[in-house]
Amino acid sequence: MKVKVLIRVILIFSIFQVFYYQPVKAEEVLPSWNEGSVKEKIITFVETVTDPENPGYIPPEDRIATFDNDGTLWVEKPIYIQIAYEVYRIKKIVEENPDLKEIEPYKSLYDSNTEYLAGLDDETIVWLFNSHKGTSEKDYEKEAGDFLEKETHPDFKRPYKELTYLPMVELIAYLQENNFKVYMVTAGETGFVRSISEEVYNIPVENVIGSFALYEFKESEGKTEIVRGEIAAFNAGEGKPANIELFIGKKPVFAFGNSDGDFEMYQYTADNEYPSICLSLHHDDLDREVSYDEGAEEVLKFAEEKGWIIVSMKRDFKRIFLFDN
Amino acid sequence: MKVKVLIRVILIFSIFQVFYYQPVKAEEVLPSWNEGSVKEKIITFVETVTDPENPGYIPPEDRIATFDNDGTLWVEKPIYIQIAYEVYRIKKIVEENPDLKEIEPYKSLYDSNTEYLAGLDDETIVWLFNSHKGTSEKDYEKEAGDFLEKETHPDFKRPYKELTYLPMVELIAYLQENNFKVYMVTAGETGFVRSISEEVYNIPVENVIGSFALYEFKESEGKTEIVRGEIAAFNAGEGKPANIELFIGKKPVFAFGNSDGDFEMYQYTADNEYPSICLSLHHDDLDREVSYDEGAEEVLKFAEEKGWIIVSMKRDFKRIFLFDN
Repeated sequence: MKVKVLIRVILIFSIFQVFYYQPVKAEEVLPSWNEGSVKEKIITFVETVTDPENPGYIPPEDRIATFDNDGTLWVEKPIYIQIAYEVYRIKKIVEENPDLKEIEPYKSLYDSNTEYLAGLDDETIVWLFNSHKGTSEKDYEKEAGDFLEKETHPDFKRPYKELTYLPMVELIAYLQENNFKVYMVTAGETGFVRSISEEVYNIPVENVIGSFALYEFKESEGKTEIVRGEIAAFNAGEGKPANIELFIGKKPVFAFGNSDGDFEMYQYTADNEYPSICLSLHHDDLDREVSYDEGAEEVLKFAEEKGWIIVSMKRDFKRIFLFDN
Repeated sequence: MKVKVLIRVILIFSIFQVFYYQPVKAEEVLPSWNEGSVKEKIITFVETVTDPENPGYIPPEDRIATFDNDGTLWVEKPIYIQIAYEVYRIKKIVEENPDLKEIEPYKSLYDSNTEYLAGLDDETIVWLFNSHKGTSEKDYEKEAGDFLEKETHPDFKRPYKELTYLPMVELIAYLQENNFKVYMVTAGETGFVRSISEEVYNIPVENVIGSFALYEFKESEGKTEIVRGEIAAFNAGEGKPANIELFIGKKPVFAFGNSDGDFEMYQYTADNEYPSICLSLHHDDLDREVSYDEGAEEVLKFAEEKGWIIVSMKRDFKRIFLFDN
C-alpha cells in the first residue's frame, strides 16, 4: 500500500513538473542592474513581446536585438580599443621599417599621443583597417585576439578583453534566454570583434556586423585561405541600418548604443510595426568608469522627445565590471 | 473506482510520453529520396556528426550547411529564374519608354530570345542587378515575390516559386532538425531570393547570402527607408567562400551545389578539421526535368578524385516536384 502511494506521489509530482509553469522572478534577472525604471522597462518590454497572449507579442524569428560595441558593451576611452590595437601594430611595423617614420600617416601615428588618437577622422580609421589588406583573415583574428588578451588598458591596468560591462553581458544573456537573436552592430571591424565575440559576449561570430572588408579566396593543393581585401563599408551612423538590412534583412525591435553613431539605428528600430525599445548608455560615472557627453550630444538631446531610454551607468549599474568588488 | 483507474492510466501515459525516446527510423527521413548509397551517405554523415560519442562529432554552433540555389534548390533552365524576372521587368520599362529600344543593353534584352538570355555574361547580369539602384528594398522584394508567385515557367507552366526540388526541401528540413544552420549561398541577388526563402525553403532571410548591393538609409519625419545602392560582390565561384567568411565567419561542413560556380565552395568545405561532405546535383533526368552537363564540367570531372558526391536526379530522387504525382 505504501509503495502504491509513493508511486502515485511520484507520478503526480512528475506531471506537475511538466505542466507547472515557473515564472522567473524579476529580482533574479539582470542582477548587476539596480532596481528602477530602466530595469523595469527592459523587463516589461521582454515580458510583453514574449507573451503570446499579449497584442504586442513578437514571434521569436523577428526578435532581433542589435548592440553597438564601443562604449556600449566595452570601454571606448581614452581611445577605441581597436585603435589601440591598430596603432600598437603600426608602431611595431615602423620599428621594423624605420623609413616609414617619414611617411604619413605612419609618422603621425608613430608620434601619436592619446589626444591625437582620440580624434582620428574616419578616413584614417579606414586606412588603418585597410592596412591589413592581403593578410589571411585567420592570422588577423589570431593577432587581434592575442592583443585583446595580453595587452592592458592604460587606466584599468586590465587586459582589454576584460573591459566589458557586466550588466550588458547579463542583458545579452537575458535576451537570448527569451529567444532574441542578438547581433553586434559596430563601427569596429568585423574580424577584429569576431576574435572575442563568442568568448566575452556569447555573440556568435555570424552575428557580428562591423565595418567590413571584402575577402578573396585562395587555394593551393587543397589548402584554402581567406585573404582580406579592401574595406567596403564603414559601419557607423547611416551605415548601421543599411548593414542591418544587408546582413539580417529584418528590422531590430531592440537597439542599444551609446553615441550619435547609433542615432540612425535607433530611428530605424523605432519605425516599427512591432513594439520596439531603444536604449542609450550614458557615461556619467566618473568614480567607477569615466564621464562624458561628447559624441552623444544628439542622442542625449532628442532621447526624451523620441522615447529613447537613457541608461545611466551611475544610477542603473549596480556593478560595472566583472573584476569590480 | 473507474475514474481512479482512468486517472492512473492518463498519468502513466503522460510519464511514458516524457521519458520514452522515439528514435527516427531511417526510412522515415528524406521520403522523396530513393534508397541507395547517396541517401545512405547523407544520413550516415548527419548521424556521425550529431553523435556526441563519435570522434567526428561537430557541436551545433559549427554545423554550417550551405546550399546553392539555381539548379540546386530550384530549376535553372532554360534560363535562371532571376534573369526571367529581370528581363520581364526590363521589357515593361522599355514599353513605357520606347526610346530605350535603341540603347544597349535594353535593345538586346528587349529583342532577346532564350538562347541569348541563357548565355548572358556576368557583366550584363550585374548591370541587371544594378538596374534596381535607388529602389526601396521593400518595394523590390515585393515586386520579386509577386513575379515568383504569378508568372509561370515556360515549360512547366507552373508559378516559378513552385519549381523547387522536393527532395532538397526535405534535406534542408532534415539538417535543421539536426541543428544545422542552413544557409543559401547563391549567385542570385540577396533581396530577390529573400522574397521567398522562408516560404519555400524555410531558410530565414538572414541566412541568404547572394550577390549583394550596398544599401542606403533614408529617414524623413520618423519614416525610414532602405534604398538599394550598387552591387558590391558577385557571389559565384571564388566569391562564395569569400562571402561565406563575410556573412558567417565559419567554414561549412556540408555544401550542396550543382555547377562549376560551386567548385570553390566545395574546396573550402572539404579543407576542414571537422568531417565534411560536398554534394553536387547532376541534371540527368530528361523525362522528369532536363538533362545537361554544361556549366558543371569541372565538378563532374574532379568529383571522384576529390570525394565529392554526385547526386543523380534520375537515380536518387523518388519525386522531383511537390506537384508531381
